[in-house]
Amino acid sequence: MAKHTKLSVDSAALAGITREPFPNSKKVFLSGTRFPDVKVPVRQVTQSPTRHAGGRVSENAPVMLYDTSGPFSDPSVEIDLRQGLPIVRAWTARRDDVEQLPGSSSEYSQARLADARLSALRFHTGRQPLRAKAGKNVSQLFAARRGEITPEMEFIALRENQRFASSRVQHAGESFGASIPNEITPEFVRDEVARGRAIIPANINHPELEPMIIGRNFLVKVNANLGNSAVTSSIEEEVEKMVWSIRWGADTVMDLSTGPNIHETREWILRNCPAPVGTVPLYQALEKVGGQAEDLTWELYRDTLIEQAEQGVDYFTIHAGLRLPFIPMTAKRVTGIVSRGGSIMARWCLAHHQESFLYTRFEEICEIMKAYDVSFSLGDGLRPGSIADANDEAQFAELDTLGALTKIAWKHDVQTMIEGPGHVPMQLIRENMTRQLAVCGEAPFYTLGPLTTDIAPGYDHITSGIGAAMIGWYGTAMLCYVTPKEHLGLPDKEDVRVGVVTYKLAAHAADLAKGHPGAQSRDDALSKARFEFRWEDQFNLSLDPMKAKEFHDLTLPADGAKTAHFCSMCGPKFCSMNITEEVRAMAEKGMAEKSTEFREGGSDVYVTTPAVERR
Amino acid sequence: MAKHTKLSVDSAALAGITREPFPNSKKVFLSGTRFPDVKVPVRQVTQSPTRHAGGRVSENAPVMLYDTSGPFSDPSVEIDLRQGLPIVRAWTARRDDVEQLPGSSSEYSQARLADARLSALRFHTGRQPLRAKAGKNVSQLFAARRGEITPEMEFIALRENQRFASSRVQHAGESFGASIPNEITPEFVRDEVARGRAIIPANINHPELEPMIIGRNFLVKVNANLGNSAVTSSIEEEVEKMVWSIRWGADTVMDLSTGPNIHETREWILRNCPAPVGTVPLYQALEKVGGQAEDLTWELYRDTLIEQAEQGVDYFTIHAGLRLPFIPMTAKRVTGIVSRGGSIMARWCLAHHQESFLYTRFEEICEIMKAYDVSFSLGDGLRPGSIADANDEAQFAELDTLGALTKIAWKHDVQTMIEGPGHVPMQLIRENMTRQLAVCGEAPFYTLGPLTTDIAPGYDHITSGIGAAMIGWYGTAMLCYVTPKEHLGLPDKEDVRVGVVTYKLAAHAADLAKGHPGAQSRDDALSKARFEFRWEDQFNLSLDPMKAKEFHDLTLPADGAKTAHFCSMCGPKFCSMNITEEVRAMAEKGMAEKSTEFREGGSDVYVTTPAVERR
Repeated sequence: MAKHTKLSVDSAALAGITREPFPNSKKVFLSGTRFPDVKVPVRQVTQSPTRHAGGRVSENAPVMLYDTSGPFSDPSVEIDLRQGLPIVRAWTARRDDVEQLPGSSSEYSQARLADARLSALRFHTGRQPLRAKAGKNVSQLFAARRGEITPEMEFIALRENQRFASSRVQHAGESFGASIPNEITPEFVRDEVARGRAIIPANINHPELEPMIIGRNFLVKVNANLGNSAVTSSIEEEVEKMVWSIRWGADTVMDLSTGPNIHETREWILRNCPAPVGTVPLYQALEKVGGQAEDLTWELYRDTLIEQAEQGVDYFTIHAGLRLPFIPMTAKRVTGIVSRGGSIMARWCLAHHQESFLYTRFEEICEIMKAYDVSFSLGDGLRPGSIADANDEAQFAELDTLGALTKIAWKHDVQTMIEGPGHVPMQLIRENMTRQLAVCGEAPFYTLGPLTTDIAPGYDHITSGIGAAMIGWYGTAMLCYVTPKEHLGLPDKEDVRVGVVTYKLAAHAADLAKGHPGAQSRDDALSKARFEFRWEDQFNLSLDPMKAKEFHDLTLPADGAKTAHFCSMCGPKFCSMNITEEVRAMAEKGMAEKSTEFREGGSDVYVTTPAVERR
Repeated sequence: MAKHTKLSVDSAALAGITREPFPNSKKVFLSGTRFPDVKVPVRQVTQSPTRHAGGRVSENAPVMLYDTSGPFSDPSVEIDLRQGLPIVRAWTARRDDVEQLPGSSSEYSQARLADARLSALRFHTGRQPLRAKAGKNVSQLFAARRGEITPEMEFIALRENQRFASSRVQHAGESFGASIPNEITPEFVRDEVARGRAIIPANINHPELEPMIIGRNFLVKVNANLGNSAVTSSIEEEVEKMVWSIRWGADTVMDLSTGPNIHETREWILRNCPAPVGTVPLYQALEKVGGQAEDLTWELYRDTLIEQAEQGVDYFTIHAGLRLPFIPMTAKRVTGIVSRGGSIMARWCLAHHQESFLYTRFEEICEIMKAYDVSFSLGDGLRPGSIADANDEAQFAELDTLGALTKIAWKHDVQTMIEGPGHVPMQLIRENMTRQLAVCGEAPFYTLGPLTTDIAPGYDHITSGIGAAMIGWYGTAMLCYVTPKEHLGLPDKEDVRVGVVTYKLAAHAADLAKGHPGAQSRDDALSKARFEFRWEDQFNLSLDPMKAKEFHDLTLPADGAKTAHFCSMCGPKFCSMNITEEVRAMAEKGMAEKSTEFREGGSDVYVTTPAVERR
């Protein structure tokens, strides 16, 4: 606990932030045509050539990968965390519908800024917050509905195309009614945002952001949670966890801090984060009232929303669907209310015998959201915490209310996604998706797993990775990761890495299953490398090149082994891939005719031929 | 490589075999009524009582778990690996349709036994092999079809019932046409075996075996692969890997050794293994011809089958469906033929321009199988090794042939299961199951994963755990595990543990989704413990109690923390489960009326109620 009495940030720790580039990789940028200052980062992975048996050599084209890691993986960029990242969205400050405030409008922010004891802990930004001019709405949804294509939309269109597809035709997908075009254009991005089917979480106060989109007709995204608690971790650690999360592929991060110095931690994260940052403002509000849920007030909560919106938080989880009459529905559950936000609000509602202010003040909240373009992530405070409680009355009553609130948010042109469970056995997952699409008008779904069984604490990244892949396939737009420490403790860096990679592979499995155009090209390139014993290429094209190489080297550490035409699984004399190469060479020399001969000769040994058998 | 010139077994290593019992667990035995010497091991986990807020205490019944770990987890049993395990199936030696041979009928076995240099390496068994008397068939299928209930069937009926169900009603399952009864009776076991829908791999020469069943209407099973290769590991390590695999829940193990001393390694494993052991006899046959596939002969292969059958191997993977005309179908694949057995036979077929002897001699193989009750695991030598190659012509041509061979095996009353892929994207998994059921007459399916993407080497236990859970749900009877080292190297002990636990959770997720009666009781008990902060009970009921406890203790190591009503995730003041307890108490004090009042008052803030909204 001692860490939290410390009122400074450790420069050595900041300097030690992870900057290692990915092997054989180079950051390249795709340029916007409508907006020349749009520069979309892509990771280009160079491959070695194929060496054929006869000595012939053929080149393998570089593979272009969607890159969430920001400038941290680019050795050509100098980064000083105390200065924050270079500005990507310089255009936000130039908008004529925004004004620069003289300082934060939040009383709490003002008090923190005025507290000299916090100086050494504080991120010293020179900027003042932006806000929509009176009566203006700066949301992407507002723009989209007016037919406007924003720089964010062009950025995203360039980013989403898996345009470096393999020459191979990929399998047809099953998209359960999604409408994924062959090419993602800025117009398509705009139309999806306008319909509420996708959101672009992009607060005007987060100019460091590399824009991304969350929607069922785009690549499935992954969120990683960070955040200190009363028990562990420091600002430096949280910043490094953020860098670490996006390194492995997190598309957004949520700062779920509940301990001290939440305000300052968030500022450090935002100023250094190229991905959207989400929060649960209620957590900080609760800290402000010393952890007593019943002492929460709308005024205090409202000030917290403004505090965070002016810092640049891109989306807020708000548990506005948890209504008073739903609370008794949870009394007979095995695990009651497991959402932190949900239980805080349930306690408040019961203590006051009132509907929650998140619900009654919802339209006032919308007014704040649209002044900064903060997106809603409508929280599922009544999500099931166990298999037994899945898909119950309480859960679906809340979902129905979230659907009603979505329409109110849309009336205000506020971007909205919906949070989903939780713990759900496989046969009940589909219903969650189907109902959410129907009730919430196709607003993007953002689920936590779901975990498909309760019996594997320590492995819940996997129990939930199964559910995540499935619900992503069915149509969920973003998957909130679960680490191996879920239910047991707070994740360390290695847990974060494992959690993110697990969710990236689940999201990619979902993209493949939906038939996302070009998604299979990375699988094809990696498998070709594997088959040709291009070990380094296999590692480099994988989600975690360092882990793949490390595992390989444990058995066969010699550098030579990475160019050898065999591996530790079978040894030099006994390699199925080697044998297949020979088979292929032999097959090319006339096996096709052999096969025809054979078939025509009717040389079946057994009475039934396959064709006969199938009748 | 030095290890393999060593011609002895290390006594210290043998004595160090894992014997640690599971926490708060006791081995209890269910007794047969038809066969009094049937004693089915079950793990009984004791729980602590629930301490309610008011001071009231209520007991929690012990939970009974299916136990694959054998005597190794039972501290009351003395085990000397040099003696082998106590005999479970003493009845096999008393059968009047079997005869005891004077020694092994395999020439190779005789030669190994006569080689004095191997003495220190050899497991010294006093027993001679059993074989069916001339003209007899000792298979479980033969017995079942004659209406006979064997001791194995009663053992399995007792073992399969999740009879210690929670009082809670579990969710209805979706079983895709499976027929799972509420209670598993010996008659049901017999009928499923007779129909070919389930197999009981139980060689009469493996009396140490605790019988188990593989079939779609039973609990989903998990196989773990062991085996040395030319590059790594020793006999002691392989025996420990076997013990370690069944400790974490492997239902069967396959010995896939390809290095030296395969014969002796197998004997050590069999004599100490309470689970069925499968092999790929072709691997050893290839060793015998110095790794030259084209030098394989039927006579040598046949001798290998007899050698292994007389040692007690319970099932053989035989790639008899890979026919000559199918080989050219693989030439345009991204990853050709990736099955070791498949590539060996493909090479043989091409070198000889002949159908494989596994296919042409199939009925002779059946004769051997039924003399010992070895089950077929018909291998998928043409399974896809990449997403690109999934569900292609080659794969399904072979599957059709496996269907034809199943019917020939059944004509001989030989138990048969079918191996399946491999690498398959999610949207193509179901077709594998549907076709297999149709083509193979519902013979049990036994799949390797499938991996749902190629891009995550180092995490392929997870890419494949996703596919395994899904195909298990659709109807696959046994899942062959994949470890984190797949494609990269040979698994160490920790990899084996992670692989087995991953597959156990996938199998359990499948049981839940199918609605296997009582499957949810373990989830319910664990979740209740979790909700009530009975930390130790949560750990003890999990698939890997040691890992769960270790992870918890990393953040909150104090013993007191394990009885504390909070955890490291949120800290003492901020615990959603704590708050829910209060909510529940308050709810019990009249919230139900409050809720009714509220509803009747029509106090919705927004125009739409959920019910209205849904229209």
